[in-house]
Amino acid sequence: MSSYPVTGRTTPTRHRERVGYEVAKAYAVLDAGYLCHVGFVVDGAPVVLPTVYARVGERLYLHGSTGARWLLRGAEDPAGLPVCVVVTLLDGLVLSRSAFGHSVNYRSVVVHGAARPITDPAEQAAALAAVVDQVIPGRATDCRPPTAKELSATAVLRVDLAEVSVKIRTGGPLDQPDDDGLPYWAGVIPLGMHADAPIPVQGLSPDVRLPGYLEPGALKPARAAS
Amino acid sequence: MSSYPVTGRTTPTRHRERVGYEVAKAYAVLDAGYLCHVGFVVDGAPVVLPTVYARVGERLYLHGSTGARWLLRGAEDPAGLPVCVVVTLLDGLVLSRSAFGHSVNYRSVVVHGAARPITDPAEQAAALAAVVDQVIPGRATDCRPPTAKELSATAVLRVDLAEVSVKIRTGGPLDQPDDDGLPYWAGVIPLGMHADAPIPVQGLSPDVRLPGYLEPGALKPARAAS
Repeated sequence: MSSYPVTGRTTPTRHRERVGYEVAKAYAVLDAGYLCHVGFVVDGAPVVLPTVYARVGERLYLHGSTGARWLLRGAEDPAGLPVCVVVTLLDGLVLSRSAFGHSVNYRSVVVHGAARPITDPAEQAAALAAVVDQVIPGRATDCRPPTAKELSATAVLRVDLAEVSVKIRTGGPLDQPDDDGLPYWAGVIPLGMHADAPIPVQGLSPDVRLPGYLEPGALKPARAAS
Repeated sequence: MSSYPVTGRTTPTRHRERVGYEVAKAYAVLDAGYLCHVGFVVDGAPVVLPTVYARVGERLYLHGSTGARWLLRGAEDPAGLPVCVVVTLLDGLVLSRSAFGHSVNYRSVVVHGAARPITDPAEQAAALAAVVDQVIPGRATDCRPPTAKELSATAVLRVDLAEVSVKIRTGGPLDQPDDDGLPYWAGVIPLGMHADAPIPVQGLSPDVRLPGYLEPGALKPARAAS
Protein backbone atom coordinates (compact mmCIF):
# COMPACT_ATOMS: atom_id res chain seq x y z
CA MET A 1 0.00 0.00 0.00
CA SER A 2 1.57 3.27 -1.06
CA SER A 3 -1.38 5.50 -0.15
CA TYR A 4 -4.13 5.36 2.46
CA PRO A 5 -7.69 5.24 1.17
CA VAL A 6 -9.52 8.55 1.29
CA THR A 7 -12.52 8.51 3.61
CA GLY A 8 -15.19 11.02 4.48
CA ARG A 9 -13.39 12.21 7.53
CA THR A 10 -9.98 12.41 5.90
CA THR A 11 -11.35 14.54 3.06
CA PRO A 12 -10.54 18.20 3.66
CA THR A 13 -13.02 20.99 3.04
CA ARG A 14 -10.31 23.62 2.63
CA HIS A 15 -6.73 23.72 1.33
CA ARG A 16 -7.07 20.40 -0.49
CA GLU A 17 -3.69 21.02 -2.10
CA ARG A 18 -2.05 20.65 1.31
CA VAL A 19 -3.50 17.21 2.08
CA GLY A 20 -2.03 13.89 1.03
CA TYR A 21 -2.41 10.21 1.79
CA GLU A 22 1.01 8.81 0.88
CA VAL A 23 2.23 6.23 3.38
CA ALA A 24 5.86 7.37 3.05
CA LYS A 25 4.92 10.97 3.82
CA ALA A 26 2.89 9.91 6.85
CA TYR A 27 5.76 7.79 8.14
CA ALA A 28 8.22 10.67 7.73
CA VAL A 29 6.08 12.97 9.87
CA LEU A 30 5.24 10.32 12.46
CA ASP A 31 8.90 9.35 12.79
CA ALA A 32 10.02 12.95 13.25
CA GLY A 33 7.66 13.65 16.16
CA TYR A 34 8.24 13.40 19.89
CA LEU A 35 4.68 13.74 21.19
CA CYS A 36 1.25 13.05 19.82
CA HIS A 37 -2.12 14.34 20.93
CA VAL A 38 -4.68 11.57 21.33
CA GLY A 39 -8.40 12.32 21.40
CA PHE A 40 -11.15 10.04 22.63
CA VAL A 41 -14.71 10.33 23.90
CA VAL A 42 -15.71 10.04 27.54
CA ASP A 43 -19.40 10.24 28.43
CA GLY A 44 -20.06 11.89 25.07
CA ALA A 45 -17.46 14.64 25.59
CA PRO A 46 -14.08 14.97 23.89
CA VAL A 47 -10.84 14.43 25.82
CA VAL A 48 -7.41 15.18 24.38
CA LEU A 49 -4.09 14.28 26.01
CA PRO A 50 -0.48 14.66 24.95
CA THR A 51 1.58 11.52 25.18
CA VAL A 52 4.63 9.76 23.80
CA TYR A 53 4.22 7.19 21.08
CA ALA A 54 6.08 5.12 18.54
CA ARG A 55 5.49 3.91 15.03
CA VAL A 56 6.48 0.34 14.21
CA GLY A 57 5.59 -0.61 10.66
CA GLU A 58 1.86 -0.17 10.16
CA ARG A 59 1.20 0.27 13.85
CA LEU A 60 1.22 3.20 16.20
CA TYR A 61 1.83 2.50 19.88
CA LEU A 62 0.49 4.87 22.53
CA HIS A 63 2.02 4.95 25.97
CA GLY A 64 -0.39 5.32 28.87
CA SER A 65 0.16 8.41 31.00
CA THR A 66 -2.10 10.69 32.99
CA GLY A 67 -5.65 9.98 32.03
CA ALA A 68 -4.66 6.35 32.01
CA ARG A 69 -8.05 5.71 33.49
CA TRP A 70 -9.54 6.58 30.11
CA LEU A 71 -6.93 4.87 28.01
CA LEU A 72 -7.41 1.80 30.14
CA ARG A 73 -10.96 1.64 28.86
CA GLY A 74 -9.39 0.77 25.55
CA ALA A 75 -7.37 -1.91 27.27
CA GLU A 76 -10.53 -3.39 28.73
CA ASP A 77 -12.43 -3.56 25.47
CA PRO A 78 -11.11 -5.92 22.79
CA ALA A 79 -12.87 -3.78 20.16
CA GLY A 80 -10.70 -0.92 21.29
CA LEU A 81 -11.27 2.71 22.11
CA PRO A 82 -12.05 4.96 19.14
CA VAL A 83 -9.25 7.51 18.97
CA CYS A 84 -7.95 10.30 16.79
CA VAL A 85 -4.17 10.66 17.06
CA VAL A 86 -2.41 13.76 15.75
CA VAL A 87 1.29 14.49 15.36
CA THR A 88 2.10 18.09 14.47
CA LEU A 89 5.51 19.58 13.64
CA LEU A 90 5.69 23.38 13.53
CA ASP A 91 8.16 24.50 10.85
CA GLY A 92 7.73 28.24 10.58
CA LEU A 93 5.76 31.42 10.98
CA VAL A 94 4.42 32.92 7.76
CA LEU A 95 4.00 36.68 7.73
CA SER A 96 2.01 38.26 4.93
CA ARG A 97 1.34 41.96 4.49
CA SER A 98 -2.30 41.35 5.44
CA ALA A 99 -3.41 40.09 8.85
CA PHE A 100 -5.72 37.69 7.02
CA GLY A 101 -2.85 36.06 5.10
CA HIS A 102 -0.79 35.08 8.12
CA SER A 103 -0.20 31.38 8.49
CA VAL A 104 2.20 28.79 9.84
CA ASN A 105 4.28 26.20 8.05
CA TYR A 106 3.78 22.76 9.52
CA ARG A 107 3.54 19.04 8.90
CA SER A 108 0.79 17.07 10.59
CA VAL A 109 -0.63 13.58 10.46
CA VAL A 110 -4.13 12.69 11.61
CA VAL A 111 -4.89 9.04 12.37
CA HIS A 112 -8.41 7.76 12.96
CA GLY A 113 -8.71 4.34 14.47
CA ALA A 114 -9.22 2.19 17.53
CA ALA A 115 -6.70 1.85 20.33
CA ARG A 116 -6.50 -1.82 21.28
CA PRO A 117 -4.75 -3.54 24.12
CA ILE A 118 -1.54 -5.43 23.47
CA THR A 119 -1.86 -8.93 24.82
CA ASP A 120 1.43 -10.41 23.63
CA PRO A 121 4.25 -9.72 26.15
CA ALA A 122 6.85 -9.74 23.37
CA GLU A 123 4.90 -7.14 21.42
CA GLN A 124 4.52 -5.03 24.56
CA ALA A 125 8.26 -5.14 25.27
CA ALA A 126 9.04 -4.27 21.65
CA ALA A 127 6.51 -1.43 21.72
CA LEU A 128 8.03 0.09 24.86
CA ALA A 129 11.50 -0.12 23.36
CA ALA A 130 10.14 1.57 20.25
CA VAL A 131 8.67 4.39 22.36
CA VAL A 132 12.09 5.01 23.93
CA ASP A 133 13.75 4.95 20.51
CA GLN A 134 11.08 7.21 19.02
CA VAL A 135 12.21 9.96 21.38
CA ILE A 136 15.94 9.13 21.47
CA PRO A 137 16.96 6.88 18.58
CA GLY A 138 19.50 4.34 19.80
CA ARG A 139 18.61 4.59 23.48
CA ALA A 140 16.47 1.48 23.94
CA THR A 141 19.45 -0.85 23.76
CA ASP A 142 21.58 1.38 26.00
CA CYS A 143 19.62 1.34 29.27
CA ARG A 144 18.32 -1.23 31.74
CA PRO A 145 15.48 -3.23 30.16
CA PRO A 146 12.14 -3.26 31.94
CA THR A 147 11.43 -5.89 34.55
CA ALA A 148 8.29 -8.02 34.40
CA LYS A 149 6.81 -5.84 37.15
CA GLU A 150 7.56 -2.65 35.23
CA LEU A 151 6.04 -4.10 32.08
CA SER A 152 2.86 -5.04 33.90
CA ALA A 153 2.58 -1.49 35.26
CA THR A 154 2.69 0.07 31.80
CA ALA A 155 -0.28 0.63 29.53
CA VAL A 156 0.52 0.46 25.84
CA LEU A 157 -2.21 0.52 23.26
CA ARG A 158 -1.96 -0.16 19.55
CA VAL A 159 -3.59 1.75 16.71
CA ASP A 160 -3.38 0.27 13.24
CA LEU A 161 -2.49 2.83 10.58
CA ALA A 162 -5.37 2.46 8.15
CA GLU A 163 -7.24 5.79 8.03
CA VAL A 164 -4.53 8.41 7.81
CA SER A 165 -4.04 11.82 6.22
CA VAL A 166 -1.05 14.13 6.03
CA LYS A 167 -1.25 17.89 5.87
CA ILE A 168 1.75 20.01 4.97
CA ARG A 169 2.16 23.73 4.44
CA THR A 170 5.46 25.04 3.15
CA GLY A 171 6.70 28.20 1.53
CA GLY A 172 6.14 31.89 1.91
CA PRO A 173 3.10 34.11 2.29
CA LEU A 174 0.48 34.32 -0.42
CA ASP A 175 -0.32 37.99 -0.55
CA GLN A 176 -2.93 39.53 -2.78
CA PRO A 177 -1.14 41.43 -5.62
CA ASP A 178 -2.73 44.65 -4.35
CA ASP A 179 -0.94 44.16 -1.03
CA ASP A 180 2.54 43.54 -2.42
CA GLY A 181 3.55 47.16 -2.21
CA LEU A 182 2.43 47.72 1.37
CA PRO A 183 5.23 48.83 3.72
CA TYR A 184 5.12 45.74 5.96
CA TRP A 185 7.80 43.09 6.31
CA ALA A 186 6.70 39.77 4.80
CA GLY A 187 8.34 36.38 4.75
CA VAL A 188 8.97 33.34 6.87
CA ILE A 189 10.54 32.80 10.30
CA PRO A 190 11.79 29.19 10.24
CA LEU A 191 11.08 27.37 13.50
CA GLY A 192 12.11 24.00 14.80
CA MET A 193 12.97 22.03 17.89
CA HIS A 194 16.43 22.74 19.22
CA ALA A 195 18.42 20.67 21.70
CA ASP A 196 20.76 22.31 24.17
CA ALA A 197 23.79 20.61 25.65
CA PRO A 198 22.95 17.46 27.67
CA ILE A 199 22.81 17.94 31.47
CA PRO A 200 24.09 14.82 33.24
CA VAL A 201 22.32 13.73 36.41
CA GLN A 202 24.10 14.53 39.68
CA GLY A 203 26.39 11.73 40.71
CA LEU A 204 26.82 10.29 37.24
CA SER A 205 29.97 8.22 37.28
CA PRO A 206 32.79 9.97 35.40
CA ASP A 207 33.39 6.63 33.68
CA VAL A 208 30.06 7.04 31.85
CA ARG A 209 30.69 9.04 28.70
CA LEU A 210 28.08 10.78 26.61
CA PRO A 211 26.88 8.14 24.14
CA GLY A 212 27.13 8.80 20.43
CA TYR A 213 23.35 9.03 19.98
CA LEU A 214 23.34 12.11 22.25
CA GLU A 215 26.16 13.88 20.41
CA PRO A 216 25.30 17.08 18.51
CA GLY A 217 23.84 16.10 15.16
CA ALA A 218 22.84 12.61 16.26
CA LEU A 219 19.68 13.71 18.07
CA LYS A 220 16.41 13.96 16.20
CA PRO A 221 16.13 17.75 16.25
CA ALA A 222 17.68 19.20 13.13
CA ARG A 223 19.20 21.97 15.21
CA ALA A 224 21.05 20.03 17.91
CA ALA A 225 23.39 22.12 20.03
CA SER A 226 26.56 22.90 18.15
CA MET B 1 -10.28 33.74 40.72
CA SER B 2 -6.73 32.58 41.36
CA SER B 3 -7.38 28.87 40.77
CA TYR B 4 -9.78 26.91 38.61
CA PRO B 5 -12.19 24.59 40.40
CA VAL B 6 -11.20 20.94 40.37
CA THR B 7 -13.67 18.74 38.54
CA GLY B 8 -13.94 15.02 37.94
CA ARG B 9 -12.29 15.24 34.55
CA THR B 10 -9.51 17.55 35.66
CA THR B 11 -8.57 15.25 38.55
CA PRO B 12 -5.54 13.16 37.60
CA THR B 13 -5.26 9.49 38.42
CA ARG B 14 -1.46 9.51 38.27
CA HIS B 15 1.33 12.00 39.01
CA ARG B 16 -0.95 14.25 41.06
CA GLU B 17 2.09 16.25 42.10
CA ARG B 18 2.48 17.45 38.52
CA VAL B 19 -1.04 18.86 38.20
CA GLY B 20 -2.18 22.33 39.21
CA TYR B 21 -5.11 24.65 38.74
CA GLU B 22 -3.56 28.09 39.21
CA VAL B 23 -4.86 30.62 36.70
CA ALA B 24 -1.47 32.36 36.43
CA LYS B 25 0.29 29.08 35.59
CA ALA B 26 -2.33 28.24 32.97
CA TYR B 27 -1.99 31.68 31.40
CA ALA B 28 1.80 31.37 31.27
CA VAL B 29 1.59 28.10 29.33
CA LEU B 30 -1.23 29.26 27.07
CA ASP B 31 0.61 32.48 26.25
CA ALA B 32 3.84 30.66 25.42
CA GLY B 33 2.26 28.34 22.85
CA TYR B 34 1.93 28.69 19.09
CA LEU B 35 -0.52 25.90 18.32
CA CYS B 36 -3.21 24.08 20.23
CA HIS B 37 -4.86 20.76 19.53
CA VAL B 38 -8.64 20.92 19.69
CA GLY B 39 -10.74 17.81 20.12
CA PHE B 40 -14.44 17.46 19.45
CA VAL B 41 -16.92 14.70 18.70
CA VAL B 42 -18.37 13.98 15.28
CA ASP B 43 -20.96 11.22 14.94
CA GLY B 44 -19.79 9.79 18.24
CA ALA B 45 -16.13 9.59 17.21
CA PRO B 46 -13.26 11.80 18.34
CA VAL B 47 -11.65 14.33 15.99
CA VAL B 48 -8.50 16.27 16.86
CA LEU B 49 -7.03 19.10 14.82
CA PRO B 50 -4.06 21.41 15.31
CA THR B 51 -4.84 25.09 14.97
CA VAL B 52 -3.71 28.55 15.97
CA TYR B 53 -5.38 30.27 18.88
CA ALA B 54 -5.14 33.20 21.25
CA ARG B 55 -5.89 33.88 24.88
CA VAL B 56 -7.56 37.17 25.76
CA GLY B 57 -8.32 37.42 29.46
CA GLU B 58 -10.57 34.55 30.47
CA ARG B 59 -11.25 33.57 26.90
CA LEU B 60 -9.55 31.33 24.40
CA TYR B 61 -10.15 32.04 20.72
CA LEU B 62 -9.84 29.26 18.15
CA HIS B 63 -9.22 30.06 14.54
CA GLY B 64 -11.08 27.96 12.01
CA SER B 65 -8.86 26.02 9.61
CA THR B 66 -9.13 22.68 7.86
CA GLY B 67 -11.96 20.77 9.41
CA ALA B 68 -13.82 24.04 9.48
CA ARG B 69 -16.86 22.03 8.59
CA TRP B 70 -16.80 20.61 12.10
CA LEU B 71 -15.85 23.80 13.87
CA LEU B 72 -18.64 25.51 12.02
CA ARG B 73 -21.07 23.22 13.82
CA GLY B 74 -20.09 25.16 16.90
CA ALA B 75 -20.79 28.37 15.07
CA GLU B 76 -24.27 27.14 14.19
CA ASP B 77 -25.22 26.13 17.70
CA PRO B 78 -25.54 28.90 20.31
CA ALA B 79 -24.89 26.30 23.02
CA GLY B 80 -21.54 25.70 21.39
CA LEU B 81 -19.54 22.66 20.43
CA PRO B 82 -18.09 20.66 23.34
CA VAL B 83 -14.32 20.81 22.94
CA CYS B 84 -11.15 19.84 24.72
CA VAL B 85 -8.28 22.18 23.89
CA VAL B 86 -4.70 21.27 24.74
CA VAL B 87 -1.53 23.35 24.52
CA THR B 88 1.69 21.38 25.06
CA LEU B 89 5.22 22.74 25.29
CA LEU B 90 8.02 20.16 25.15
CA ASP B 91 10.93 21.24 27.34
CA GLY B 92 13.28 18.28 27.45
CA LEU B 93 14.04 14.60 27.15
CA VAL B 94 14.61 12.80 30.45
CA LEU B 95 16.95 9.81 30.32
CA SER B 96 17.05 7.46 33.28
CA ARG B 97 19.21 4.38 33.60
CA SER B 98 16.09 2.21 33.24
CA ALA B 99 13.94 2.14 30.11
CA PHE B 100 10.91 2.36 32.41
CA GLY B 101 12.08 5.64 33.97
CA HIS B 102 12.39 7.59 30.74
CA SER B 103 10.18 10.63 30.51
CA VAL B 104 9.86 14.07 28.98
CA ASN B 105 9.79 17.49 30.60
CA TYR B 106 6.84 19.51 29.43
CA ARG B 107 4.17 22.03 30.31
CA SER B 108 0.61 21.44 29.17
CA VAL B 109 -2.79 22.96 29.70
CA VAL B 110 -6.04 21.09 29.14
CA VAL B 111 -9.22 23.13 28.73
CA HIS B 112 -12.67 21.55 28.74
CA GLY B 113 -15.49 23.72 27.50
CA ALA B 114 -17.77 24.71 24.69
CA ALA B 115 -16.66 26.56 21.56
CA ARG B 116 -19.21 29.26 20.83
CA PRO B 117 -19.62 31.54 17.85
CA ILE B 118 -18.57 35.15 18.14
CA THR B 119 -21.44 37.37 17.07
CA ASP B 120 -19.97 40.78 17.84
CA PRO B 121 -17.88 42.09 14.91
CA ALA B 122 -15.64 44.09 17.25
CA GLU B 123 -14.91 40.97 19.32
CA GLN B 124 -14.19 39.01 16.14
CA ALA B 125 -11.74 41.65 14.90
CA ALA B 126 -10.04 41.78 18.30
CA ALA B 127 -9.86 38.00 18.43
CA LEU B 128 -8.21 37.77 15.03
CA ALA B 129 -5.68 40.43 16.00
CA ALA B 130 -5.00 38.46 19.17
CA VAL B 131 -4.39 35.30 17.14
CA VAL B 132 -1.79 37.14 15.04
CA ASP B 133 -0.15 38.53 18.18
CA GLN B 134 -0.24 35.14 19.91
CA VAL B 135 2.11 33.83 17.23
CA ILE B 136 4.14 37.01 16.65
CA PRO B 137 3.72 39.51 19.49
CA GLY B 138 3.55 43.02 18.07
CA ARG B 139 2.56 41.99 14.55
CA ALA B 140 -1.18 42.69 14.61
CA THR B 141 -0.68 46.46 14.49
CA ASP B 142 2.03 46.20 11.81
CA CYS B 143 0.15 44.66 8.88
CA ARG B 144 -2.90 45.45 6.79
CA PRO B 145 -6.05 45.02 8.90
CA PRO B 146 -8.69 42.60 7.63
CA THR B 147 -11.41 43.83 5.31
CA ALA B 148 -15.07 43.18 6.07
CA LYS B 149 -15.00 40.43 3.43
CA GLU B 150 -11.96 38.78 5.02
CA LEU B 151 -13.59 38.97 8.45
CA SER B 152 -16.74 37.32 7.19
CA ALA B 153 -14.68 34.50 5.65
CA THR B 154 -13.01 33.67 8.95
CA ALA B 155 -14.38 31.35 11.60
CA VAL B 156 -13.38 32.25 15.15
CA LEU B 157 -14.87 30.44 18.10
CA ARG B 158 -14.63 31.33 21.76
CA VAL B 159 -14.02 28.99 24.67
CA ASP B 160 -14.39 30.40 28.17
CA LEU B 161 -11.59 29.36 30.50
CA ALA B 162 -13.51 27.75 33.35
CA GLU B 163 -12.49 24.08 33.56
CA VAL B 164 -8.75 24.10 33.21
CA SER B 165 -5.80 22.09 34.49
CA VAL B 166 -2.05 22.53 34.11
CA LYS B 167 0.45 19.71 34.07
CA ILE B 168 4.16 20.34 34.38
CA ARG B 169 7.12 17.99 34.62
CA THR B 170 10.55 19.44 35.32
CA GLY B 171 13.87 18.13 36.55
CA GLY B 172 15.97 15.08 36.03
CA PRO B 173 15.33 11.36 35.97
CA LEU B 174 14.04 9.54 39.04
CA ASP B 175 16.06 6.37 39.06
CA GLN B 176 15.62 3.58 41.55
CA PRO B 177 18.61 3.61 43.96
CA ASP B 178 19.55 0.13 42.76
CA ASP B 179 19.97 1.52 39.24
CA ASP B 180 22.19 4.48 40.12
CA GLY B 181 25.40 2.57 39.56
CA LEU B 182 24.46 1.17 36.16
CA PRO B 183 26.83 2.19 33.37
CA TYR B 184 24.29 4.19 31.36
CA TRP B 185 24.27 7.93 30.78
CA ALA B 186 21.42 9.64 32.62
CA GLY B 187 20.24 13.22 32.63
CA VAL B 188 18.24 15.71 30.63
CA ILE B 189 18.45 16.98 27.05
CA PRO B 190 16.83 20.43 27.12
CA LEU B 191 14.58 21.06 24.12
CA GLY B 192 12.77 24.10 22.90
CA MET B 193 11.54 25.91 19.84
CA HIS B 194 14.29 27.74 17.99
CA ALA B 195 13.87 30.46 15.36
CA ASP B 196 16.28 30.75 12.47
CA ALA B 197 17.01 33.99 10.65
CA PRO B 198 13.94 35.52 8.97
CA ILE B 199 13.61 34.86 5.22
CA PRO B 200 12.07 37.87 3.47
CA VAL B 201 9.61 37.23 0.67
CA GLN B 202 10.93 37.70 -2.87
CA GLY B 203 10.41 41.22 -4.05
CA LEU B 204 10.25 42.78 -0.60
CA SER B 205 11.05 46.46 -0.97
CA PRO B 206 14.52 47.29 0.36
CA ASP B 207 12.87 50.19 2.18
CA VAL B 208 11.09 47.69 4.44
CA ARG B 209 13.38 46.87 7.33
CA LEU B 210 13.07 43.93 9.68
CA PRO B 211 10.75 45.15 12.45
CA GLY B 212 11.93 45.06 16.04
CA TYR B 213 9.52 42.32 17.01
CA LEU B 214 11.30 39.96 14.59
CA GLU B 215 14.78 40.76 15.87
CA PRO B 216 16.68 37.98 17.67
CA GLY B 217 15.48 37.89 21.26
CA ALA B 218 12.18 39.61 20.53
CA LEU B 219 10.47 36.52 19.14
CA LYS B 220 8.63 34.19 21.46
CA PRO B 221 11.05 31.27 21.24
CA ALA B 222 13.62 31.51 24.00
CA ARG B 223 16.31 30.44 21.56
CA ALA B 224 15.87 32.93 18.74
CA ALA B 225 18.64 32.89 16.17
CA SER B 226 21.67 34.72 17.46
